[in-house]
Amino acid sequence: MRILVTGAGGFVGRKLVSKLGNHEIIALDQHSDQIPQLPHITSITGDLCDNTVLETATAGGCDAVIHLATVPGGAAEQNPDLAKRVNLDATIALANAVSKSGNQPRFIFASSIAVFGNPLPASIDDTTPLTPTMLYGAHKAMIEAWLATLSRRGELEALSLRLSGVVARPKGPSGMKSAFMSDIFHALKNGESFVMPVSAQASCWVNSVDCVTDNIIHAVDADLDKLPPTRAITLPTLRIRIAELVTEIAKQSEQSTELVTYSPDAALEAAFGALPPVTTQSADAMGYTNDTNLEALVANTLQDLENNTGNLSD
Amino acid sequence: MRILVTGAGGFVGRKLVSKLGNHEIIALDQHSDQIPQLPHITSITGDLCDNTVLETATAGGCDAVIHLATVPGGAAEQNPDLAKRVNLDATIALANAVSKSGNQPRFIFASSIAVFGNPLPASIDDTTPLTPTMLYGAHKAMIEAWLATLSRRGELEALSLRLSGVVARPKGPSGMKSAFMSDIFHALKNGESFVMPVSAQASCWVNSVDCVTDNIIHAVDADLDKLPPTRAITLPTLRIRIAELVTEIAKQSEQSTELVTYSPDAALEAAFGALPPVTTQSADAMGYTNDTNLEALVANTLQDLENNTGNLSD
Repeated sequence: MRILVTGAGGFVGRKLVSKLGNHEIIALDQHSDQIPQLPHITSITGDLCDNTVLETATAGGCDAVIHLATVPGGAAEQNPDLAKRVNLDATIALANAVSKSGNQPRFIFASSIAVFGNPLPASIDDTTPLTPTMLYGAHKAMIEAWLATLSRRGELEALSLRLSGVVARPKGPSGMKSAFMSDIFHALKNGESFVMPVSAQASCWVNSVDCVTDNIIHAVDADLDKLPPTRAITLPTLRIRIAELVTEIAKQSEQSTELVTYSPDAALEAAFGALPPVTTQSADAMGYTNDTNLEALVANTLQDLENNTGNLSD
Repeated sequence: MRILVTGAGGFVGRKLVSKLGNHEIIALDQHSDQIPQLPHITSITGDLCDNTVLETATAGGCDAVIHLATVPGGAAEQNPDLAKRVNLDATIALANAVSKSGNQPRFIFASSIAVFGNPLPASIDDTTPLTPTMLYGAHKAMIEAWLATLSRRGELEALSLRLSGVVARPKGPSGMKSAFMSDIFHALKNGESFVMPVSAQASCWVNSVDCVTDNIIHAVDADLDKLPPTRAITLPTLRIRIAELVTEIAKQSEQSTELVTYSPDAALEAAFGALPPVTTQSADAMGYTNDTNLEALVANTLQDLENNTGNLSD
């Protein structure tokens, strides 16, 4: 298959394209210097908001697209106009271009649990209504609706995957308010002290980048029979207490948990530290998985950091 | 209150602004020659897609907006780019401008039953999921989601009203695929023959423009306590068989039903002639009403045609 991946130079994108060796990959990003140079990957440097870039990226035909590029939560709040251009306008234009360049191509859209709003409801399952509060979450919900419509019209075959926290992102500014979930890995691995901006009791949804990219790859050719009419599913995730995460990272890194002090920020605690129980019936039935358990998640994540240069930015 | 009405020169808009005499109305339309010239109405001619027009329209402050302007179903299919610019981009820009020009202004959005798709589900109530198939329906669903998000953020106070068939629109092209529901009034009133593009058994949702504008006016200052979290409600409507509608119009117009022949078009029958039973619990509880019965609907509509010049276009 010929697969277009947007945001291929980002944290999830780099890992994803490197694992898609049995496909022909068109890897699009504003900053393509971080896209792996591998025989199956053709890099295109360009702005998703530029229609000529979309034409170039889809010119050779397209069997599937994996659309990761986005202006994330915090960044969208700071620049609503840019967020609208990328998260809505460019995504709608991309769907249009992709539809025209294939035979009902599969459109895998990286949506987000931000569609459920802040604070989140007391529990989340496949019937939970979408009540976003961040602009980013509203954009994701709107595009889910748009792609489901195009699917009903036979223009493409959409599958929106709602992602939650992915670790461990590179250090440095990412526009992600949930960066602390990644930063704790870097700090403990390097024996550095860390001020945790949520409480020890905070409950978070966390997934290794390895697990998340496996789920996205599963979406490329998985059966869609069990997909709900919304064509959107919440991906399985581990729900863990921050103190337990800290303990496990410290243990596997052979460091002391005393490196970590807690200084909860009310807004971050509400948005990322009070995540409710979640069931993901549709995703489970379709073969998507979480990291199995905390020990495996931490081992996966530390191994991934070991394999990387560690100097990449998102 | 100072109320901005978009699409004020259109069929619903003209009737609406003429009835809002106890408010100060800013009436915006591309074609303002059809906006009633009344002391309480200030007309602005301009394109909703032009930001300077939005700035002018909201410059004096805004307590509420009634957003009627749209690229409707058939026209949107023919010009998707224009439809996106008006139905999404300009509406988002309008919401932004209105938010900045008032203190949580009320945003009354003319949504549509097109959000439920085609064919419609077997019955419709306030829990029916949104599964649009027309681009227009998807745009309406996306804006409902956007406005609900802005409401949760405290930027405005949205109320999306899902309208169905409104009669009797002026004769001539309107971009509305459901024009036959209006055209039958004109034909029988004038004693002209009419080829009905749906079957005699077709079931339609029909409302007089008088009833619809009353409902919109009710929304201006009605209590929102019973509004669901989606902030969207389907307005009450009459569900009638086309043959019964024909009989009643002919009776009140003192014409023969033999003027009407039936030549059903499969696509129109599916889209507008197979409308299922509907219950509108939220709207009923909030005080919105339908035309009460077929006799009243037809009487209201014929009276309205009598009062108009009949030469206006939509």
